[in-house]
Amino acid sequence: MNKNALILTRLGRCAIAIFCFIALFVAEVQAQTKATWIWYPGDYEIWLSNKMQNRRTERGSFFPPFWKLDSHYVLIDFHKDYNIASAEEAEIAVEGQYNLKIDGKAVAGYPKKITLPAGKHRISLKVYNQGAVPAVFVKSTHVVTDNTWQVTFEDKEWIDASGKTSDISATQYLQAGSWNFNEANTSPSAFRLPVKPQQAVSKDKKARSIFVDFGKETFGFVKLHDVKGKGNVTLYFGESKEEAMSLDGGELVDKFEVNQDKSGDLTFDGSRAFRYVNVVFDENVNIGDVSMLYEYLPVEQRGSFKCSDEQINKIWDVSAYTMELNTREFFIDGIKRDRWIWSGDAAQSYLMNYYLYFDSPSVTRTISALRGKDPVTSHINTIMDYTFYWFISIYDYYQHTGDQAFIEQSYSRMQSMMDYCLSRRNKNGLMQGLTGDWVFIDWADGLSKQGEVSFEQMLLCRSLESMALCANIMKDTKGSAKYGALAKDLKAKLFTYYWNAQKHALVHSRVNGKQTANVTRYANMFGIFFNYFTEAQKQDVKKYVLMNDKVQKIVTPYMRFYELEALCAMGEQDYVLKQMKDYWGGMLNLGATSFWEEYNPDKKGAEHYAMYGRPFGKSLCHAWGASPIYLLGKYYLGVKPTAPAYSQYLIEPKLGGLQWMEGTIPTPKGDIKLKISTTQIKVTADTGTGTLRIKSKTKPECSDAAVRATAGGYYEITIQKGKTFTVNYKAV
Amino acid sequence: MNKNALILTRLGRCAIAIFCFIALFVAEVQAQTKATWIWYPGDYEIWLSNKMQNRRTERGSFFPPFWKLDSHYVLIDFHKDYNIASAEEAEIAVEGQYNLKIDGKAVAGYPKKITLPAGKHRISLKVYNQGAVPAVFVKSTHVVTDNTWQVTFEDKEWIDASGKTSDISATQYLQAGSWNFNEANTSPSAFRLPVKPQQAVSKDKKARSIFVDFGKETFGFVKLHDVKGKGNVTLYFGESKEEAMSLDGGELVDKFEVNQDKSGDLTFDGSRAFRYVNVVFDENVNIGDVSMLYEYLPVEQRGSFKCSDEQINKIWDVSAYTMELNTREFFIDGIKRDRWIWSGDAAQSYLMNYYLYFDSPSVTRTISALRGKDPVTSHINTIMDYTFYWFISIYDYYQHTGDQAFIEQSYSRMQSMMDYCLSRRNKNGLMQGLTGDWVFIDWADGLSKQGEVSFEQMLLCRSLESMALCANIMKDTKGSAKYGALAKDLKAKLFTYYWNAQKHALVHSRVNGKQTANVTRYANMFGIFFNYFTEAQKQDVKKYVLMNDKVQKIVTPYMRFYELEALCAMGEQDYVLKQMKDYWGGMLNLGATSFWEEYNPDKKGAEHYAMYGRPFGKSLCHAWGASPIYLLGKYYLGVKPTAPAYSQYLIEPKLGGLQWMEGTIPTPKGDIKLKISTTQIKVTADTGTGTLRIKSKTKPECSDAAVRATAGGYYEITIQKGKTFTVNYKAV
Repeated sequence: MNKNALILTRLGRCAIAIFCFIALFVAEVQAQTKATWIWYPGDYEIWLSNKMQNRRTERGSFFPPFWKLDSHYVLIDFHKDYNIASAEEAEIAVEGQYNLKIDGKAVAGYPKKITLPAGKHRISLKVYNQGAVPAVFVKSTHVVTDNTWQVTFEDKEWIDASGKTSDISATQYLQAGSWNFNEANTSPSAFRLPVKPQQAVSKDKKARSIFVDFGKETFGFVKLHDVKGKGNVTLYFGESKEEAMSLDGGELVDKFEVNQDKSGDLTFDGSRAFRYVNVVFDENVNIGDVSMLYEYLPVEQRGSFKCSDEQINKIWDVSAYTMELNTREFFIDGIKRDRWIWSGDAAQSYLMNYYLYFDSPSVTRTISALRGKDPVTSHINTIMDYTFYWFISIYDYYQHTGDQAFIEQSYSRMQSMMDYCLSRRNKNGLMQGLTGDWVFIDWADGLSKQGEVSFEQMLLCRSLESMALCANIMKDTKGSAKYGALAKDLKAKLFTYYWNAQKHALVHSRVNGKQTANVTRYANMFGIFFNYFTEAQKQDVKKYVLMNDKVQKIVTPYMRFYELEALCAMGEQDYVLKQMKDYWGGMLNLGATSFWEEYNPDKKGAEHYAMYGRPFGKSLCHAWGASPIYLLGKYYLGVKPTAPAYSQYLIEPKLGGLQWMEGTIPTPKGDIKLKISTTQIKVTADTGTGTLRIKSKTKPECSDAAVRATAGGYYEITIQKGKTFTVNYKAV
Repeated sequence: MNKNALILTRLGRCAIAIFCFIALFVAEVQAQTKATWIWYPGDYEIWLSNKMQNRRTERGSFFPPFWKLDSHYVLIDFHKDYNIASAEEAEIAVEGQYNLKIDGKAVAGYPKKITLPAGKHRISLKVYNQGAVPAVFVKSTHVVTDNTWQVTFEDKEWIDASGKTSDISATQYLQAGSWNFNEANTSPSAFRLPVKPQQAVSKDKKARSIFVDFGKETFGFVKLHDVKGKGNVTLYFGESKEEAMSLDGGELVDKFEVNQDKSGDLTFDGSRAFRYVNVVFDENVNIGDVSMLYEYLPVEQRGSFKCSDEQINKIWDVSAYTMELNTREFFIDGIKRDRWIWSGDAAQSYLMNYYLYFDSPSVTRTISALRGKDPVTSHINTIMDYTFYWFISIYDYYQHTGDQAFIEQSYSRMQSMMDYCLSRRNKNGLMQGLTGDWVFIDWADGLSKQGEVSFEQMLLCRSLESMALCANIMKDTKGSAKYGALAKDLKAKLFTYYWNAQKHALVHSRVNGKQTANVTRYANMFGIFFNYFTEAQKQDVKKYVLMNDKVQKIVTPYMRFYELEALCAMGEQDYVLKQMKDYWGGMLNLGATSFWEEYNPDKKGAEHYAMYGRPFGKSLCHAWGASPIYLLGKYYLGVKPTAPAYSQYLIEPKLGGLQWMEGTIPTPKGDIKLKISTTQIKVTADTGTGTLRIKSKTKPECSDAAVRATAGGYYEITIQKGKTFTVNYKAV
């Protein structure tokens, strides 16, 4: 404000004539106060994800992904048209080989400073970088690199024989991408997650080994203290004690040589997931102690939940910790094994994130990295269903954040991805696994992937609806009509082809054009919260599928997420709370300090750790295990956006048997805080216009707003931002 | 042979039973004697071309290309199924982070040696490299990395919950690419062209400058000798003396600081093109002497030409030197300015190469680099005509080399490139410049690019014919039929829309569906050597276009190449020889030591050096200036392949007024040597079956083969490889 005031004083003499100019100028000052490193949108995400996804090892062998990894564009043109009152000195930092031009005229060499001339001008930088992402940072008083800069990977600025530049280049520019590299010396390519020291809770030191327990699942770099001598050291990591003690069965084993004359500390440079580590060393080696450096993404936990049930509180806390461990450069599947970005897993992380961190960059980084670039040569992660989650999650993201720029950046890649899907439909217009397509659905014994699986059609239908909504945002009326019509047609087929009146459910698949007899939970539960069913069908599905023990049970927290969501959407919060206590509580009872990739209560002891035919193949810290965060936020505290960015939202709290609960729901512009008991509800919101919808035995009382009785026995109260609304009621 | 003999002795005892095995084994030994670094085909070429094309500077500013640069795949799976009699120790070298598997089982760590088990096995390496191309080198006695290895960028080898690998991955494998990196320690990423010292022919040393003349156009790194002191040094380069003497007008100027307490040598690290360099330095700097390191591609000059005309010999030699300078990591346009790969320029270099070096890797490197990768977002180099030259040059390459593997590698990228072109046709099915398309044709004053230019349709037609031929090689019958039909249709349109009987020529263009009145040389001369005209039309075009001074003259050696080719194809060797002496001789008379980007005899003095509105903008060493090599080889010595790889070829010598000429035509399997006077022809060939076709006043005599009289007054003699054929005749 001081700076603006100064400008106003200085220009004050010729007041009226330049008023408009000042107004514009002030607006510009406000918009451009923060310089940040910028790049071609999506490129840094692809580059960083390559780095991350190539860190997997299996017993000391490098274990990279099996799908195509894309790359950044190596040559990028950046520019910005600016308008400043007087010349300014700008600081320039660039990652790559570059030129800098003012109004198309190049400056010699690789300037680190430049005087920007006063008035209206264009500053351009063109950067080549093969190994890392071309990125630039410019900072003067009023001209700074940010998302208002334009970028392209082909400027097509050819010249004719006279030296005149082409005026028909038809180059498409996008707004630059950025994250949070806000200083000239914080080069994007040098980015590493921060670390902090962590100590063991117990150690068992022997002549040639130290067995260490860090007390809970953790992630980072093992540090060996007071190392001396020459010889081999082997680190046997374990998420379970059994795994760390197994010399030949653990997933993570690293062997290296030390050669130290003088005693010193040594940090192993591979980040690993573990609770236990068994450090085994040759007789000529001495190791004094073992600790670790915990590696994490610094992101604020804005969401919270507390209630009258201590086990549920513990479940929420362990879920939050599971999310913390899996929220890294990207939302990953699990910290021990893959450390890859899987679209199906990530889609759940986004949803949990909206109730825990509301960290939008983590969502967009992950979505961009998953998509990679054209040409599309396979489904995302090679999995058909994972492609569909990708589409659906983008519209979801928009609904939560209102981030239209991200839709604009992503739309053409959404279109080409959808073209790929549509080109792979069979003659009935349905998705059927072709060679190269992994039809995953879920880890479930004997689950058929043959023929036209109903679940895949349902996800494609929802993807098409998401495309139509994004087309609207892009003002692509033709696209909107096209995707809308395709969705409508496919939805009709879903019911014609798969609904079985005798079974009161959608069947699992069609093979050779005929319905199979099998009913599974997948399409049926998604149909509930996609709101594809009639009310009668919903009740049928609930009775004959969701609450029917004869239908194959779900054993992964992954699909439990959606199963319990469907039940919550049907108002079964009491039942779901019990299920949560049973299933997640079951893991806690087995000593879980983070939630697992898969949990089958019928297994015993170390059987729990086996998967993929390997004794410790299972991940004991898997993002999809953290779903209680989502369920408790969305279906118990009951808050969800009904217009983009929480400009409007609904609060429909359900105690589900709890005596009380309280919590915070993060939104783009502040929090929504709730405190709910069976007799009183308190709501404070920083943003938007909310509708509190409750059932009550008597008409609720609220001194802060009017209470409306509405259909279905509900009462509604409008929540405005900025003050606390207290509602007295009698919970039904 | 010793090695094989040894094996036979060792195995000799159980002779018959294992005879077949030995036969196979020996074959394998012969096939696999040379290990070479391998990579995903095309990737190294893209990576290296990025490096090269980002070396351009303009007066000390970085000047990168204006089109999209692609990148290598960062994660590649390599494998080979081998069969060896006994276990072997293999040496492993890899560029990147990798794993090594035998039969799918990973070895821990990053092995540099491995014992390959005896019998049938699969060795796989999976390599991640972001900054450079994933590449591997494996060498044991019988298992070596070479083009028989299979590679993919997406193996899609997912596993199910039991750990079983997918058997429906449908992964497409290609044969590995390679060049000539045949030792473990010759890492592809470390590749640099070799250099050798070169001395100046004159120096003018003053207190604060040294002006140096290297006597002819050259390329490489300036070396400063006995440098001492602290201060700035500026290198003013010049292809002409005027350029090096101009302090503010030269294209290449580099300024840097030296700081040397002790006197020492210093090589400037930017490679530059020049004949002259003016080294200017601050008063606190001393420089003793200046020399340079000449940088070159080591490639054998197999072709040769000598004749009775010394000026023509000089033209051939300077053409060869022009080619030498522009044949580098790739065939580039010119050494001073762009140093980029331009498809139209390169297409001519390929043709010249077939008569000078016959270096196939230089052709395929350049073709692969030009194409880059999908998706296609613009024409090659943004130029419509340059895309078409790319198609045509691939079939040309096959015709000269018979390299089917390259067609197999390139075909899918040819298809997608053609899809791009076809999608940009207008409603009449013709190519017309859309925004973003550069319709180049030639540098010529006032040349119209509007509407539907006949030249572009002709090139597309030839491209479609090339596609049909390549489709045949790929056994893609559907593709062959499709491209063939499109070509036929377009050829018909060419004549319906553009042939003007009054003008006896194809007109230049149609605008708004109407023929324009303008006739230019371009489509008409290509129509000659594409053989698109009737004999009557050919004669018309010759008279009314090629030999008609009222039709706009061509001033670039680029289009002179095709103009003179058309005239040669019409038998006008006498006329063309005079033109050559006039035009190329004209440049020599002006002191050219290499041939130019453009030459207009009407200009005077330093006017010759100007282009693009800049006083020294013109390149004085441009590959397209070297066309006499091609013309003299193909149309005077008169040798060209008529079946792939010179398995069959034609020799139709034309002295064109010369008393005698002799030369060597390189082919894939040896040379064809010719010595021709007005009375005797001697031919020796290492390869194929040739047809010598000559005119003679009397029936020629040949003691080595039969002489056949054929239509048109020609005599033909069949040339078999391995002996010298001497023909006595009387030249017409």
